[in-house]
Amino acid sequence: MHVMVDLTVVPIGVGVSLSGYVAACEKVLTAARLTTRLHAYGTNVEGEWDEVFAAIKRCHEVLHEMGAPRIFTVVKVGTRTDKAQTLDDKVHSVESKLAGR
Amino acid sequence: MHVMVDLTVVPIGVGVSLSGYVAACEKVLTAARLTTRLHAYGTNVEGEWDEVFAAIKRCHEVLHEMGAPRIFTVVKVGTRTDKAQTLDDKVHSVESKLAGR
Amino acid sequence: MHVMVDLTVVPIGVGVSLSGYVAACEKVLTAARLTTRLHAYGTNVEGEWDEVFAAIKRCHEVLHEMGAPRIFTVVKVGTRTDKAQTLDDKVHSVESKLAGR
Amino acid sequence: MHVMVDLTVVPIGVGVSLSGYVAACEKVLTAARLTTRLHAYGTNVEGEWDEVFAAIKRCHEVLHEMGAPRIFTVVKVGTRTDKAQTLDDKVHSVESKLAGR
Repeated sequence: MHVMVDLTVVPIGVGVSLSGYVAACEKVLTAARLTTRLHAYGTNVEGEWDEVFAAIKRCHEVLHEMGAPRIFTVVKVGTRTDKAQTLDDKVHSVESKLAGR
Repeated sequence: MHVMVDLTVVPIGVGVSLSGYVAACEKVLTAARLTTRLHAYGTNVEGEWDEVFAAIKRCHEVLHEMGAPRIFTVVKVGTRTDKAQTLDDKVHSVESKLAGR
Repeated sequence: MHVMVDLTVVPIGVGVSLSGYVAACEKVLTAARLTTRLHAYGTNVEGEWDEVFAAIKRCHEVLHEMGAPRIFTVVKVGTRTDKAQTLDDKVHSVESKLAGR
Repeated sequence: MHVMVDLTVVPIGVGVSLSGYVAACEKVLTAARLTTRLHAYGTNVEGEWDEVFAAIKRCHEVLHEMGAPRIFTVVKVGTRTDKAQTLDDKVHSVESKLAGR
């Protein structure tokens, strides 16, 4: 099952600067060869369900190993059976509508 | 790795009444013998990471089989290494503070 | 416009124990006379749009005053024009389906 | 109070294709002169609290006027008192860490 997710990982108990932890999670996603798009509030990720969720679990493990005692993550998960769609398709679909096409 | 999640499943393309789909997902969680607490915006779920996420995947499969062409799910995921904590502990912790203890 | 929200407030940079901050936010919601239901991952809140969102803003202000330098909040927001519905109606609707009614 | 949000609007009861509704909401944000960044799972928005939340309310009103009987929205909200930060700063901060800086 193909899945598109949006992943926001918030380590708790490590102070206010979180970017080093977010970068570590990005490296996990990249190492898993998943398609990703970083944005200011998380990362869009696309792939097969089991691979995507194995990478999310790995992010939690890596951040705990880095010293985060507590992690709060928000994952939006989308699956559809009516058509194949990529992350870029989703953005283009909205942009077309904005352009009046 | 123990995990506490909050799961909100929104089937898309099946009209405005979603409770039958939410109930089907509840049955999946119960069949997986996970600890759950239903609320008006989703379900708190507690268990081992792999079992919890296998159940969430099963929810998507079951809802697609019921005819939902598209599913949008929001999952909040919490793990911590500093202490063991249950869903009820979390609620009691806030309630104690409210009671001034 | 009537709204039902689910509110999860995560103060960042104040250590791992967050319940005191969550309790302070609960007090803000109660002081605003909103209907609330606390659960392990947040609080369901029901009311008029402007009152609910004024209370959420007040939660951010109060938590910053308590010393939280950074706050990450997740709000799920539901509005509908097809029927009036309460938080309890939503739970009962799923429970009826589970009971086979 | 300055705020950075991530906004995902899901109209329910209007079929599977949601991009026209998402585009209508984008137009509302643009008309409000807010800084926005569209991604595959929502839109990052930056501005003053009251202006940002007035625009989110307007999105709900516009989508209901377009015929959506029910709307489910997820908003991530970030405020901080320790430093000023833009949407682009957040992305650059992670990218710097990825580049080993």
